[in-house]
This record gives sequence, C-alpha cells and structure tokens, in this order.
Amino acid sequence: MVSNKRKIINDPIYGFVTLPDDLVHDLINHPIFQRLRRIKQLGLTNLVYPGALHTRFHHAIGAMYLMTEALQVLKSKDIKITEEESRAAIIAILLHDVGHGPFSHALEHTIVKGIHHEDISAMLMDELNKAFKGKLSLAIKIFKNEHPKKFLHQLVSSQLDMDRLDYLNRDSFFTGVSEGVVSSDRIIKMLNVKEGNLVVEAKGIYSVESFLIARRLMYWQVYLHKTVLSAEKLLVNVLKRAKELSLAGEDLFATPALSLFLKNNFSKKDFISKPELLQQFVLLDDYDIMASVKVWMNHKDIVLSTLCKNIIDRNLYKIELQNKNFTPTYKNQIQEKVMKKYKLTKKESEYFVFAESVNNSAYNSSKVQINILHKNGQLIDVAKASDQLNIKMLSKKVTKYFICYPKGL
Amino acid sequence: MVSNKRKIINDPIYGFVTLPDDLVHDLINHPIFQRLRRIKQLGLTNLVYPGALHTRFHHAIGAMYLMTEALQVLKSKDIKITEEESRAAIIAILLHDVGHGPFSHALEHTIVKGIHHEDISAMLMDELNKAFKGKLSLAIKIFKNEHPKKFLHQLVSSQLDMDRLDYLNRDSFFTGVSEGVVSSDRIIKMLNVKEGNLVVEAKGIYSVESFLIARRLMYWQVYLHKTVLSAEKLLVNVLKRAKELSLAGEDLFATPALSLFLKNNFSKKDFISKPELLQQFVLLDDYDIMASVKVWMNHKDIVLSTLCKNIIDRNLYKIELQNKNFTPTYKNQIQEKVMKKYKLTKKESEYFVFAESVNNSAYNSSKVQINILHKNGQLIDVAKASDQLNIKMLSKKVTKYFICYPKGL
Amino acid sequence: MVSNKRKIINDPIYGFVTLPDDLVHDLINHPIFQRLRRIKQLGLTNLVYPGALHTRFHHAIGAMYLMTEALQVLKSKDIKITEEESRAAIIAILLHDVGHGPFSHALEHTIVKGIHHEDISAMLMDELNKAFKGKLSLAIKIFKNEHPKKFLHQLVSSQLDMDRLDYLNRDSFFTGVSEGVVSSDRIIKMLNVKEGNLVVEAKGIYSVESFLIARRLMYWQVYLHKTVLSAEKLLVNVLKRAKELSLAGEDLFATPALSLFLKNNFSKKDFISKPELLQQFVLLDDYDIMASVKVWMNHKDIVLSTLCKNIIDRNLYKIELQNKNFTPTYKNQIQEKVMKKYKLTKKESEYFVFAESVNNSAYNSSKVQINILHKNGQLIDVAKASDQLNIKMLSKKVTKYFICYPKGL
Amino acid sequence: MVSNKRKIINDPIYGFVTLPDDLVHDLINHPIFQRLRRIKQLGLTNLVYPGALHTRFHHAIGAMYLMTEALQVLKSKDIKITEEESRAAIIAILLHDVGHGPFSHALEHTIVKGIHHEDISAMLMDELNKAFKGKLSLAIKIFKNEHPKKFLHQLVSSQLDMDRLDYLNRDSFFTGVSEGVVSSDRIIKMLNVKEGNLVVEAKGIYSVESFLIARRLMYWQVYLHKTVLSAEKLLVNVLKRAKELSLAGEDLFATPALSLFLKNNFSKKDFISKPELLQQFVLLDDYDIMASVKVWMNHKDIVLSTLCKNIIDRNLYKIELQNKNFTPTYKNQIQEKVMKKYKLTKKESEYFVFAESVNNSAYNSSKVQINILHKNGQLIDVAKASDQLNIKMLSKKVTKYFICYPKGL
Repeated sequence: MVSNKRKIINDPIYGFVTLPDDLVHDLINHPIFQRLRRIKQLGLTNLVYPGALHTRFHHAIGAMYLMTEALQVLKSKDIKITEEESRAAIIAILLHDVGHGPFSHALEHTIVKGIHHEDISAMLMDELNKAFKGKLSLAIKIFKNEHPKKFLHQLVSSQLDMDRLDYLNRDSFFTGVSEGVVSSDRIIKMLNVKEGNLVVEAKGIYSVESFLIARRLMYWQVYLHKTVLSAEKLLVNVLKRAKELSLAGEDLFATPALSLFLKNNFSKKDFISKPELLQQFVLLDDYDIMASVKVWMNHKDIVLSTLCKNIIDRNLYKIELQNKNFTPTYKNQIQEKVMKKYKLTKKESEYFVFAESVNNSAYNSSKVQINILHKNGQLIDVAKASDQLNIKMLSKKVTKYFICYPKGL
Repeated sequence: MVSNKRKIINDPIYGFVTLPDDLVHDLINHPIFQRLRRIKQLGLTNLVYPGALHTRFHHAIGAMYLMTEALQVLKSKDIKITEEESRAAIIAILLHDVGHGPFSHALEHTIVKGIHHEDISAMLMDELNKAFKGKLSLAIKIFKNEHPKKFLHQLVSSQLDMDRLDYLNRDSFFTGVSEGVVSSDRIIKMLNVKEGNLVVEAKGIYSVESFLIARRLMYWQVYLHKTVLSAEKLLVNVLKRAKELSLAGEDLFATPALSLFLKNNFSKKDFISKPELLQQFVLLDDYDIMASVKVWMNHKDIVLSTLCKNIIDRNLYKIELQNKNFTPTYKNQIQEKVMKKYKLTKKESEYFVFAESVNNSAYNSSKVQINILHKNGQLIDVAKASDQLNIKMLSKKVTKYFICYPKGL
Repeated sequence: MVSNKRKIINDPIYGFVTLPDDLVHDLINHPIFQRLRRIKQLGLTNLVYPGALHTRFHHAIGAMYLMTEALQVLKSKDIKITEEESRAAIIAILLHDVGHGPFSHALEHTIVKGIHHEDISAMLMDELNKAFKGKLSLAIKIFKNEHPKKFLHQLVSSQLDMDRLDYLNRDSFFTGVSEGVVSSDRIIKMLNVKEGNLVVEAKGIYSVESFLIARRLMYWQVYLHKTVLSAEKLLVNVLKRAKELSLAGEDLFATPALSLFLKNNFSKKDFISKPELLQQFVLLDDYDIMASVKVWMNHKDIVLSTLCKNIIDRNLYKIELQNKNFTPTYKNQIQEKVMKKYKLTKKESEYFVFAESVNNSAYNSSKVQINILHKNGQLIDVAKASDQLNIKMLSKKVTKYFICYPKGL
Repeated sequence: MVSNKRKIINDPIYGFVTLPDDLVHDLINHPIFQRLRRIKQLGLTNLVYPGALHTRFHHAIGAMYLMTEALQVLKSKDIKITEEESRAAIIAILLHDVGHGPFSHALEHTIVKGIHHEDISAMLMDELNKAFKGKLSLAIKIFKNEHPKKFLHQLVSSQLDMDRLDYLNRDSFFTGVSEGVVSSDRIIKMLNVKEGNLVVEAKGIYSVESFLIARRLMYWQVYLHKTVLSAEKLLVNVLKRAKELSLAGEDLFATPALSLFLKNNFSKKDFISKPELLQQFVLLDDYDIMASVKVWMNHKDIVLSTLCKNIIDRNLYKIELQNKNFTPTYKNQIQEKVMKKYKLTKKESEYFVFAESVNNSAYNSSKVQINILHKNGQLIDVAKASDQLNIKMLSKKVTKYFICYPKGL
C-alpha cells in the first residue's frame, strides 16, 4: 500500500519532488529540520538580488532530489548500492547543512566562534539519530566518510557533489544570474564509479568545465559581490558590537536564545559538555537577529544604533575592491576623517572603516579531484584532461582586497 | 549626463529592470519602501510552496516595470501621456502596497482592526509626499482615481492592472505553479485607451480569458489552498490570543512596536489623530512576529504556547473544505473532544476548533469591467465578448466552507 | 548488462529522454519512423510563428516520454500494468501519428482523399509488426482499443491523452505562445484508474480546466490563426491545381512518388489492394512538396505559377474571419473584381476567392468524458464537476467563417 | 500615425520582437530574405538534437532584435549614433547571412566552390540596394567596415557581436543544451564605446568569460559533435558524388536550379560576370537537396544510392575522434575491408572511408580583441584582463582528427 506520507513538494526548479520514504518524511517534519525554513541560504544577498530569499530548507530538499537522481543513474550502470545505502545517502545530503545558524555563512563564527557549521550538523545528526532510534547511523557514517563505498560520501561532499549542483542552480534561479545555471541533469547522467570513487565519463568533460566556470562566476558575481560583502560585514559588525556591549554588562533587547549567545563566549568544548547549549542554538534563526537589530536602532550606543539603522535602511558601506592590499596610509586617512566627522574614538571607528580580503579558487586540485573516466578506463584529473581550458589556472587561489567606509564621506 | 542613480535591479522574471529616474531611485531607498523587503508577499504560503518567500518589495518593483512597458505601448499608439503623468503612474504603482503590514493579507485586520492596508498606503504616501516636497501629488491623485485620465488609475488598480499581472506571474514563478503564468507581455501589447478608459484590443481576448482562468486557478491552488488557510488561521489565532492576554495585563515578550499594538486596540481615528502611531506601525514586519512567536512557545499560557509550537514546528490544523456549511452539531462534537482531550474551557477551545468560509470570484462585472475593443470601435464587456467561454460564470462568487481542528484527534 | 541501445535524446522541453528498451530503439531507427523527421508538426504555422518547425518525430518522442511518466505514476498507485503492457502502451503512443503525410493536417485529404491519417498509421503499424515479427501486436490492440484495460488506450487517445499533453506543450514552446503551456507534470501526477478507465483525482480539477482553456486558446491563437489558415489554404490550392493539371495530362515537375499521387486519385480500397501504394506514400514528406512548388513558380499555367509564387514569397491571401457566414453577394463581388483584374475564368478564380468555415470545441462531452474522481470514490464528468467554470460551455462547437482573396485588391 | 507595418514577430527566446520601421518590414518581406525560412541554421544537427530545426530567418530576426537593444544601451550612455546609422546597423545585421546556401555551413564549398557565403551576402545586398533605390548604402558600408564608426561594424561582426550572442542563445534553446545559454541581456548592458571601438565595461568580465566558455562548449557539444560531423560529411559526399556523375554526363533527378550547379563548376568570377547565376543560386534551399537525395536512393550508381539511403534512414558513418592524426595504415586497413565487403574500387571507397580534421579556438587574439574597459579608462584585452582564467589558453587552436567508415564493418 502507498503510504500517506508520500508527500510531493513543489520546486520551481525541478518541478515535483516526491519524498522517497516515511523516514525522510518524518525527518523533514522534525523541528530541527523545519528550522531551516527560517534560515536564508544566501544571508543578505537579497539586498542586491531581491529574489535571493530561498532557505536552507529548500536547498536541502533540492540536493536530496538530485541525490535520488544520481543514485538511480549509478544503479542503472550496475553500481551496487543497497536500499539501505541509498536511503542513508539521501538522508546524509538532506541533513548536511542542518547545523547552519542565522543567515548561513554570513554570521558563521560571529554568534559562536571556533565552531564550524559542519560540527553542529554532526552534533544535530547524532541528536536526531537518538530520536529516530539509530536509523541514521549509516547516513552519519556516509556523512563522515567512514563508509567503505567512498563514492556515496563524494555525492554528499566533494568538488562535484549534489550540494554544489543544487546550490548553483538554485542560487542562479532565485538571483536571476542566468550564467550560474548548471546542467545538473547532464552531469548526473555522466556520473559513474571507478575503483570505489565517483568519476565523470569522458564525454561529460565540457559540462564539468562549464560547471567550474559557472561556480567561479557565481563567486564573484553573487557570493562575493562587493555590495553583498558590504552588507554582510555590516551585519557582522552589528553582532560584534552587540556582543561587546553585552559582555560589558549592557542590557540589550533580544530573544532569550540570542541573549544567551550575546552574553557568553561559548567554545566547541562548551557545546560538548553542556547539551542544553545545542538546544538553545537551534532556537536561533534569521528572525531573532533582524527583530533585535530593528530594536537596536534606538539603542543609546551610537555605534550600535548607527550600524543597525544602516542595515535596516540599506545604507551600506561604500566598498572598494582591488587585487592588491590597501596601504595602511590609505586606510588611516579615511579612518581619521571618519573619527572626526562622526566624533568616534579610534576603536569605535574600526566598526566603520576596515580593510579585509576574500579569496576563492574554482577548483582545488589538492582536495579530492574530479576524475574523468576515459573510454579506455583511464582516470585523469579534470585539471589535466581538458584539451584547452587551463583548469590548473582555476585551482589558483584568487584573493581580492577590500576596504569599507561610510558613504558620502 | 547619465545619472549615477540609473540603477539596474535583477529580476529573475523580467531580467534587468532599469529604474526610470532619480525620484523613483530615491523613493525606493526610503526606509518606508525598504521596509517592504521584510514583508512576504504571500504570508505563510511558503509552508506549502517553499519557494514562495518573495516580498512586497520585489512585487512593487515588478509592477513598476510592467507599468513602464504599458505606458510605452500606449504612447506608441498615440495616446497622450505627459512625462509627468508617466512618472506619476509609475510612482503610484510602486507605492500602491506600501501600507501592508506583517505577512501581508494574512494578518490584515489582526494587528490593527478596521483599517485596510490601502488606507495605510494612502497615509504613507502623504507622508512621503511631505518628505519629497509635493513631488508625489499627481501620483497620489492617480492612486485615488482623482486624475481625469482614468486609464492611468486603471493601470494601477482595476481588474486588469499591472498589480495583478505582476503578482500572478511572480507568485507562479516562486511557487512553481506553472498554470498561473500569464502572458503579461502579450496582454500589455494589446492595451489601448478608448474614451479615456483602458481597453483591450479584440485579438487579445483569448489572453484575457487565459488571464482570468489563471487567476482563478491561483486562488484555489495557492492563495486559498487549504493548508495555506490552515497555517494562516493558526498565525491569526496566535496573535489574537497574544492580544487577549496583553489586554488582560499579561506581559509578553515582544519588540516595542509590536508590544504597543498588542496592548491597545487602535482605530482608524487613532491613526489620524496620533501621527506617531503610523511611525510605530512602519517599524513592524514579519521579523517582529516570528521572533515573538518563537519566544511564546515557552509561555505559561497553554493556549498560546501550543499554538506557537504548532506554527513553528509546522504542525498545522487539520482542515476540511467543502461547498456547504458545516453543521453546528459536527463542529460541537469535535469541539467537545478537543475540550476533553486538551482540558480546555469552551472559550479556549475556540482557538483550536472553528468553522469559517472563504470566497472568490475570478471576474467581477459589477466593478469596472474589462472592455474589449472591436475593430469597428465597439466596446464589449469581456464577460459578453467571449464566443464560448461563459465568463459570466466566472463572476459568480464561489464560497467554500472550512473547519479546522487539531491533527490526530 | 546495460544495452548499447540505451540512447538518450535531448529534448529542450523535458530535458533528457531515455529510450526505455531495445525494441523502442529499433522502431525509432526504422525508416518508417525516421521519415517523421521530415514532416512538420504544424504544417505552415512557421509562416506566422517562425519557431514552429518541430516535427512529428519530436512530438512522438515527447508523447512517449509522457507515457513512461504516466505509467510509472499509475504503477505507484498499485494499478496493475505488466511489463508487456507497459511497453505496448509506449509503442502505441510512439506510432500513433506514423501515418501523417506531408505538412501533417494541412495537406490531409489533399494528396490522398478519403483516407484519414489514422488509417494509414494503422496500416503502417501492421507493416512494422511484420518486420518486427509480431512484437507489436499488443501495441496495435491498445491503439485500436481492443485491449480490455481501456485506460491504456485512453492514455494514447482520449480527451486527456499523452498526445494532447505533449503537443500543447511542444507547440507552445516552439511558437512562443506561453499561454498554451500545460502542467503535464501536475496532471500526470493526478491520474488514476477507476473501473478500468482513466480518471483524474479531485484535486487535479483546476489543472484539467486550465488544460482545456489552454487547448482552446491554442486553437484560436495558433492552429486556426487566420494567417495560418490563409497559408494552408494556399498550399492546398496549389496541390489541387497541380493535381487538376496532372489528371488532365499536363506534365509537372515532381519527385516520382509525388508524381504518382498527382496523376491518380487513389481510394482507401486502392491502398488495401495495392500494397506498393503504401510504399510510395511513405516516400512523401514536406521536401517533395516544397521542392516542386518552387519549380512550379515558373510553370506556364498562370493559376499554378501565381499560387506557387505567393506561397514561396509569403504573399498570402487576405483573410476575413467572422462568426457568421459571408453572403454570396459579398463573395461574388470580390470574385468578379478578381476575374477582371487577373483575367481569370470563373472556375480559375475559385483558386483565389473562396469562403469556408472552421470549427472547434474545447471539450466534447459526447466523446469519452474526462472523469474526476472524488475522495468518496464518486466519478463526475469534468463538465459538471467544476464549481464555477461552465465547462459545458466549452463543449459547444464554435464555428468561424472566413473568406480569402488576393491582397491589394 | 503608426504604420500598418509595425509588425510583431513572436520569438520563443526574446518574446515579442517589434520591427523597427517600414524599410526593415519590406526587406523582411522580400523573396531574397524570405528564402532564409527554408535554410536551417544548423544543417543536419537535428539528426542529433531533434529540436535544432530553426532557420537563418529566425536567427537574422533575433540578431536584429539584439542590435536594437545594443544601440539603445549605447545611446543611453551618450554615444552618438544618428537615426540613419541606427537603422543601417540594424539592416546590416539583418542581412549579414543572406548569402547562405542550403544547410548553411554544411554544404558551403560543396555546391559552389571557392565562394564564401559572405561574398554572396555582399552580392545580394548590392542587389537589394538596387531594388530599394540606394537605401541600403550605409548598411553595406557598415557591413564592409567602411564606415568610420568602427563600433557599428563590430556590433555586426567581431568576436562579441550580436550575431554570436543570438546564435549561441538560439542554438542552445533549440538543441536543449542549456550550458550554451549566454546572458545576452547582461553583456549588452555592459557594452560601451571607447576611441570608436566597442568595449565591455570592467564588471562585465565574468559574463564575457562565461560567453567564451559557452561558445567553446557549443563547438564541441553541438557544432562539431561527432555524430553531426558524420551526418554532414555524408551529405557532402552525396553532393560530391552527384556532381561527379553529373559532370560525367549522367542525368540525375533534380530541380532545375540544383541541376545547373551539379552540371557546372562555377567560380567567383562566373558569379560576377553572369548575374543570372545569382538568380539561380537564390532559388536553392534545403528542399532542393533533400527532395533530390530521396529520389537518388534509387539511382543505379551504387555509391550514390547507398550514401543517399544512409542519410535518409539516418544510418550514419561510424566516426572516431581523437587528438592526433590517424595513421595511414589504420585508414588503409579499414578501406581495404570496405572495398572487399562492398565490392568497391579504391576511388569509390573514398566516399565511405576518409580521415579529416576539424579545429576551433574559442577566442582569437590575433583578430580584433574583446577589450575590457576599466574604471580608470584603461583598455585591456580580455585574454589578459581575466584574473584567473587563462583566456590566452582559449586562443590556442584545438584540432581534432576524425575517421569515418561504415557502421557494422
């Protein structure tokens, strides 16, 4: 009999996504997963691309969909995958991002320091595994790359995983940056397994190149777009100032969960020793942050209130971006103007003037490579397999330097 | 010289949208307009269609884009529209929804009673007109249908306005319900003006029919989808209970602005007499609501905390929908079960069991009609012009009755 | 082992279409099927919508794809369909249009009279069944509705079959008439079988309505678009004149196969008694016609050469379309002008001036109905199930009358 | 008053395309331009991608549309372009491909040798200029790069022209190869003019890269796809054999125009000295070829009839593709097998076994470069401007070698 739980989710990208089984259905309905509905995939990117409001929830469902497609393709090529492994791989990708905090990457290392979102994902999976009586054990093994069939982990996390295929397509779709569209369909059809590792068949090479280029473009056009950077740095500074004030004993309006993290600096060790911290962390999402930021617009601390007004009214930093470091002199000149104009101490002015850098490499050959499987059975790293495009060049880390300061200086 | 303000906004639906002039640019940057970034177009619809997170901000920009297209088409047909009128019509559509409160229609009449969002839009336009030194006067006239060229108002608000063309396309796009797609391009090309009124040229009739059917489908498939109804009623009940408790003197966590509206029942008169109320109202958006709801999950009032948990964990009411009223006996039986099971008073149980109705008509011939312009110059109401499709039928109001109660009763 | 024949076909509408098995692969590669590559789906519609060059080949592949989707959905709902039936249904839809002649419907009943393309499809299926040693027998039974599981035939041919779902989507896509897009995905998910017949589950009703409206729109906007009518009538007249001249002993340039059909009036009986006629018929496609028409531009018969020049240079008839018949007087007046201006006999002038009619009904309740399956198990004809839209109205046959005559008269 | 000629053409890619003026309208309606409706843009590519049936007609209209967009963008940046130049640039792009023969590139240099399609385009433009009384003179100057504003020619023909932008998008759309989609919208918004030359503003660099990569992908995935090559070589050999036989006095079925070119080897000089040749050439299109090929399937010459059957039944050559030349030994071995199996002379066997090469470079820095305009006003060749992607690599010519021989050898 067909289960009542055979729910269908409407995805504007893939059409109808059918949930593969009851366990997946129940996981999706769990509060820990539902929370992802309140965490935007791309932080504050919507301040530049107003459509980019999609959430980690939608991305996780999409990546799950691609995983079911990929598993089906591999099975049709006689790769042995048991029903249990299939379901575990699906669950692993579904939960891979469950540990993300408010505004995803934008506030990572701001609310809690020294803890990567993947650490929290792992903790939450263990938590869910208890709630589901051990049914997630294999999924967790695959997530942690402890299952002998390496290719299952590689579908979850590698340089050509279902995570990346989904987010490039999804982020393109919702931002409207059409160059980021990736033919996930085509790439998935070309997947295969060789010696236990995920590989791409030879005729898929142009699609893989196209995927790497699309990813690179999305980095500079969207993820590290200078106005997006400017907005996210502003929000980071708001939280930093709020925490600074809180730690100094100032009482700030905040939801109880946010309050806890403002008043304390918790370490990874704390998360392990005090399980209630994780309970509090999963109460946090985008709503706690923005509701508080709006209230702080009227806080008496001029630094905090100014930063908050700026973010709410989208009065972002002016940002300059270049290929080499800004000179200390240049920064100092600006900083002095700001101190004078806004009557700030040097320390306070650091919230308004700062120089940093970002970097990205489209392909990282030091990580697990993307291997191309030739007709003769030979495996070649995509960086070497391309006849013309120097993908080796794409593995070079590109660093860009930026300086932020108030507009209209 | 080209202004710096010639900003381009990326819209995944229309591609690049160029802002027509500096005034529009400055209006969009005003905090009153920026606030629309934090108000979802479709309330809680994302609980059913996870992509439906788009905001009033994006919709307003889209409607503005369609307005510029429509004006261009009319001008190319020698309809006289001055530059000033053109700009005013653009501003009127841009601001038509500026008075929406948190979660758009979902919470209308909950946070403030007896005040329609269009009343607040009008107040805010007056406010902005002061800030912009009277430059919006003509736009306001068009919005209020006080300008002699009626067709300009009809482009802003009628049964075939740029508002509807945009929201049908936008809501289709973000929900993924492809049947809602409307050929706005084609309809706009067929617009004309006859005796001062907006009309559609004869060969556009199939597109108009298609538009009416698409709209009807979106009503029942999306806007009044039963699970969406269930979710929105849940949120309404949360706010009702929170207000009930607040008015009774209970202290609830809330942002200051939300607190003000929980502790008081303001009337339209109050808004007129106390201008500071409007200031407080525009501080409210989706974030105030959801951040508070999350905190209320732990409130000691069992009704409030249960409702809040249910919405946050997406544990919605079971909902039955039918074409005739539910009998009082049916409702009473359920209500008694609920009272017993959850140990609630009758009054409390009304938050968990209730029967209501919704209605819609796809076309309303009692309002300003959609007129079809025949080649011989004759105008015919679309309800009569259709050779086959009985559009008169579409003007019949359809009422559906629903009853909500806790799942797993 | 995976067969070499597991070919993938790229479809811009559905993405990758995988051929389900070797028999299908071999059928597609048969010359009788490959011929469909040279027969445009929409005749001369490309003279109005320049993208509409897609072929019967592509449509057949698309309909096959939708059939595999539909069968999968029905199986997931525990409808019993054997592997053999599944394959037969797929083959039946693949071959349903194999008997179409040059320019599909446009020249039907012109090259051969009194034989419907479905008769020829049936003959060709028998032919193929011999070549494939009886492997198509069940497919043929399903095609002819002789298999007890009626729903399989209904998937091939009914008012909501995979044929219509595909052609509406495909014709929309290639013409760019976006209102014709049908959510085939959604409709297919809602299919079910009740008492051996294909039905649509209750919540699919809006999609079915939307499908009927889309179909109606495509009729008037594309299939019976007045300029398309004008072009196709022109081509019909070219062939009629060429045949008239040929039968009168005039020697016309033509490919041998076309020559045979110009010089003879074959009946259905002839096709049955002389199997070589079918062999000659399948040699015909769009290329024979247009290559000859181009040569006939220089033929000494002024009627033929003028008609041919007109079609090649897209100098189409002026066409008037209205809801009632044109009076004989009106036609006569025009005809006389034409006779005079072009120095034609009355009989010749009939090639340039003529009045006819076309008709269409979006839904035909006298045929097998589209039944909606309600939750209580009840079946209701869609024409009655709709709460508001009077689908009964859609079953009314709409007739439009047109008159054609030379431009610039 | 608005002209009757303000026709709108439906393009599934760009939506509605409005013809800019009456001259353009009349040019499009001229038989020389209408002929492009019968010449497929991508030759026999539809044998691999069944949707690729679009024509030179549709491409020319699309390129014209992009040209109007580009001119509008440049004007909005205060680049001086007169109305006359604007119209001339539009006409130049509209007519740039008017000289293409049957199956576009596939049969270039087969039907007439030593004459590039651009030569014929130029002759036909002169022809049209006479018919239109000199109104095309400026357009012709722009086409030939004889107008001082070089950027206008560069919009028509350069490494980033409207031709390429359109064909990449159009070929992607109709083949369904989504990686070829180019954000023409975005690139066009970034165009500018510096020192009389077309340049791209700095922030468009990622889009330009993306465009170059898309173009490269389309080359190997579509234009030089090995099955496409195989099909086109087959058609070339059919024509070669037909011409060989015709020149030897054999009488072959053909339309009169095709017959003329089969029986004679015309040179460029002949085209200049005998104007009637051009008249005959423009009578040729895809239909002449395929109609004849079908008849030749029954020709007594076994080489010709076999090749023709193979193309009509899509029984293509087996093709091997590699990065280095095939050894003569390898070819000879195959050739001997073929001679033996099919009882062919060595010369005849060359029609069935042959080795050739194709090459492509995505970017050619020896031609007019694509220049990136930096904020400081500096111009940098895109090959050097890219921070990471080695576009210099893309300028390397890539050669691939292939060998063709009958399947099932």
